Amino acid sequence: MGVGYYIGMKFELLQGKFIVLDGPDGCGKSTQSQLLKELMISNGVEVVGVRDPGSTSIGEQIREILLSNDNAEMNVRCETLLYMASRSQLYGQHIAPALAEGKCVVCDRWVSSTYAYQAVAGGIGRETLLDLAEHCLERTWPDVTIIIDMPMERSMSRIGDNPDRMESKGDEFHRKVRDAYVELADKYENIYVIDGNGSIQEVHKRVLLVLDTIFN
Amino acid sequence: MGVGYYIGMKFELLQGKFIVLDGPDGCGKSTQSQLLKELMISNGVEVVGVRDPGSTSIGEQIREILLSNDNAEMNVRCETLLYMASRSQLYGQHIAPALAEGKCVVCDRWVSSTYAYQAVAGGIGRETLLDLAEHCLERTWPDVTIIIDMPMERSMSRIGDNPDRMESKGDEFHRKVRDAYVELADKYENIYVIDGNGSIQEVHKRVLLVLDTIFN
Repeated sequence: MGVGYYIGMKFELLQGKFIVLDGPDGCGKSTQSQLLKELMISNGVEVVGVRDPGSTSIGEQIREILLSNDNAEMNVRCETLLYMASRSQLYGQHIAPALAEGKCVVCDRWVSSTYAYQAVAGGIGRETLLDLAEHCLERTWPDVTIIIDMPMERSMSRIGDNPDRMESKGDEFHRKVRDAYVELADKYENIYVIDGNGSIQEVHKRVLLVLDTIFN
Repeated sequence: MGVGYYIGMKFELLQGKFIVLDGPDGCGKSTQSQLLKELMISNGVEVVGVRDPGSTSIGEQIREILLSNDNAEMNVRCETLLYMASRSQLYGQHIAPALAEGKCVVCDRWVSSTYAYQAVAGGIGRETLLDLAEHCLERTWPDVTIIIDMPMERSMSRIGDNPDRMESKGDEFHRKVRDAYVELADKYENIYVIDGNGSIQEVHKRVLLVLDTIFN
């Protein structure tokens, strides 16, 4: 792997930072988080990796309710609040303590997901969601959010044979999700969108390129 | 049972009304809801009885997370949001449709519970909770809330041998819960507090006395 893309990055600046990787189902978030964490660790950064929803015992129980195909009748308001509940537990139990100890937290998904899935595609509305998030959470926005963009057709083709409740919502829904992610990156300074097409290493370099522009 | 207490009540006025019975664990809410529903039905009122959290498949799954003693590490913010999530599902799935059809909804617990348990005893704060409820729910307040008051020592003595996570929070917590319920009834016009001491029939008459003053 070439290092040209992050030759200027000061890894020590990542200590105490809250970094989110987000994007549509199937965009490659988890793989990219893993690669990023490994690189950070090999450069002496103390890293805590978490996924939202989940990563706490309570959050994993909430995740089960959210993703179970038996819960098709869930309304979008309930859905949004369950994501917020899981997030609150994750923040209080893992993220806040880790940041306080100067560790870098790398998290799969955060409020940006709820913006795309529930506010825009689900129809709760952008302002309502952002207002709700401010009320529900101790911290709404991370230091950096990197959105891995991918056309709906491609990301959906990567979903396995047993899609969960969110993955099963259909093409029109997932097209809106994708557009909402891109829109979010346009709106906020600390949200970056990168192209998710290409090899794992190519996308990894794009992640590093974003971090390099911030932490140098 | 004497009928003097509700001789003036016009049962037809209960159609389309949202009535909540609330109060500390062990105060006798469920018994009183049951008696009230039976009386309404025998007087020609179409009634839907629900409990919060619960009464929907999703709500019962959330209830399990909330009350499980395995989830002792749950923070109060997560707890509050789980109650709100269950409530949103209950409102959308059962309460709103029933009210729209002109039925009377009798519900065990509602926002008044979260005010007592999470805002005051749990420490989220009164204003924060009320503000959050306004953002989370389609409907924050029912038409009437009847709080069945009981000294902490007495209500706690009615809890069984296997207290759930909320029931296990200790005397000081439950004393604050009780005081918060009474305070709430002082603050809002549509919240009434009745004495929960005495026989089931005596308390039932007090419930009817409240409804009689409103629906006549």
